[in-house]
Amino acid sequence: MPENDRDYIQSIERGFAVLLAFDADRPNPTLAELASATDLSRPAVRRILLTLQRLGYVTGAGTRWSLTPRVLSIGQHYSATNTLLESAMPRLLEVAEKTEESASLGVLDGVDVVYAARVPVRRIMSINVSVGTRVPAYATSMGRALLAWASAETVDDVVANSRFEKLVEGTITSPEALRIELARVREQGYALTSEELEKGLISVAAPVRDARGTVVGVIACSTSTARNTPEQFREHAVPIVLRAAADLSADLGFAS
Amino acid sequence: MPENDRDYIQSIERGFAVLLAFDADRPNPTLAELASATDLSRPAVRRILLTLQRLGYVTGAGTRWSLTPRVLSIGQHYSATNTLLESAMPRLLEVAEKTEESASLGVLDGVDVVYAARVPVRRIMSINVSVGTRVPAYATSMGRALLAWASAETVDDVVANSRFEKLVEGTITSPEALRIELARVREQGYALTSEELEKGLISVAAPVRDARGTVVGVIACSTSTARNTPEQFREHAVPIVLRAAADLSADLGFAS
Repeated sequence: MPENDRDYIQSIERGFAVLLAFDADRPNPTLAELASATDLSRPAVRRILLTLQRLGYVTGAGTRWSLTPRVLSIGQHYSATNTLLESAMPRLLEVAEKTEESASLGVLDGVDVVYAARVPVRRIMSINVSVGTRVPAYATSMGRALLAWASAETVDDVVANSRFEKLVEGTITSPEALRIELARVREQGYALTSEELEKGLISVAAPVRDARGTVVGVIACSTSTARNTPEQFREHAVPIVLRAAADLSADLGFAS
Repeated sequence: MPENDRDYIQSIERGFAVLLAFDADRPNPTLAELASATDLSRPAVRRILLTLQRLGYVTGAGTRWSLTPRVLSIGQHYSATNTLLESAMPRLLEVAEKTEESASLGVLDGVDVVYAARVPVRRIMSINVSVGTRVPAYATSMGRALLAWASAETVDDVVANSRFEKLVEGTITSPEALRIELARVREQGYALTSEELEKGLISVAAPVRDARGTVVGVIACSTSTARNTPEQFREHAVPIVLRAAADLSADLGFAS
């Protein structure tokens, strides 16, 4: 484990562990709750909280702690340093306008897809899809469009480390089924999932390539089964998403 | 300084300092550039980078380093723990739809306003207005709507620590002018700025109150002088933004 490595600074790991222990289930934790969530001692958590408070990332009221908006600014440094995001925004706006559905840019991070940019249009079931939200790659159109053209090493890594949980009735739950699906995605040039991540959610995603042809992200668009069948959405949204992904790839210097 | 305090963990401060040294001016810094930006020694920066890499927040290619999308997930913990954001999204969508302009939720953090949520509509001049972006409170409609109903202590603190830079021709550059403006905002119930933060940008903002009546955020909407005069925008957008802010306040339990 990293603890033995002299180049590894454990306090930094612990600082992030405490910061990330604030989540939807624990929005305003006590010191004791944070200690339990992070497996750290109370005195250790206390020192970390006081440090994070001094840095402006957390604030305490009574015995309860909460995150401050300064935490959002950390994430913004990724957006500001990533040229993909800036180029993607006008394309996402086009997709949202033409489909009248929310459009997103997704990037791979380990076994998850992270929403790197998003143009919301309607209130879909998933209210909490804000930028930075993580969803499992194996169960989403975004993840499959990212993996379909990824290196064998990346795919093996995601397959080995994904939980393949049956999130809803239709979720793919085996490595074999995922690999078959990835071959299909490669063949058709985009991914479509219907009710695999959550009930009622249909989503399409198409790959975005950089100048070297590497898939660096996906453009995705989601709808509800209340508004579309998967086939209606395929017919309507796929050409729009493919066009936007091709345009964004060209913006990034990809010559198809 | 905090260094002497035994409850302050300097490694955590340094970890964030290195992470935040990646910005629009320095998207892919070298170790030497990071050392210079943070005033830390190269060996110290090296250990921090190796730690952040192990945690998945940075990645190195050759001599250049960059942030990973995992950094976005840190910010997402704020969104996930903040009920204001979830309630705000449908209201922002309404504002964007009715005004056909981008709508934002802003919250105060020190002397800055942080964009906590945003529904982009058009590509305005400010391309990099992603969630987590910080703008100075003194020069923005969002900041003034946040300060107009803030405690005297908060206003004094912002006045004392703001730089009052002349960002463009029309920027307010004195504490006195700001305090006069805050009184006007209180009187009219909203803030409007035209070309104070940047040329061509017009913006309106209205306060959002929680159940106790405390202003906890603002709903704002921006346009370009290419599309509206300040007076046109006032007439068109102010009623929509005021309505949305009142509805959101009611959602939060405020009884007007």
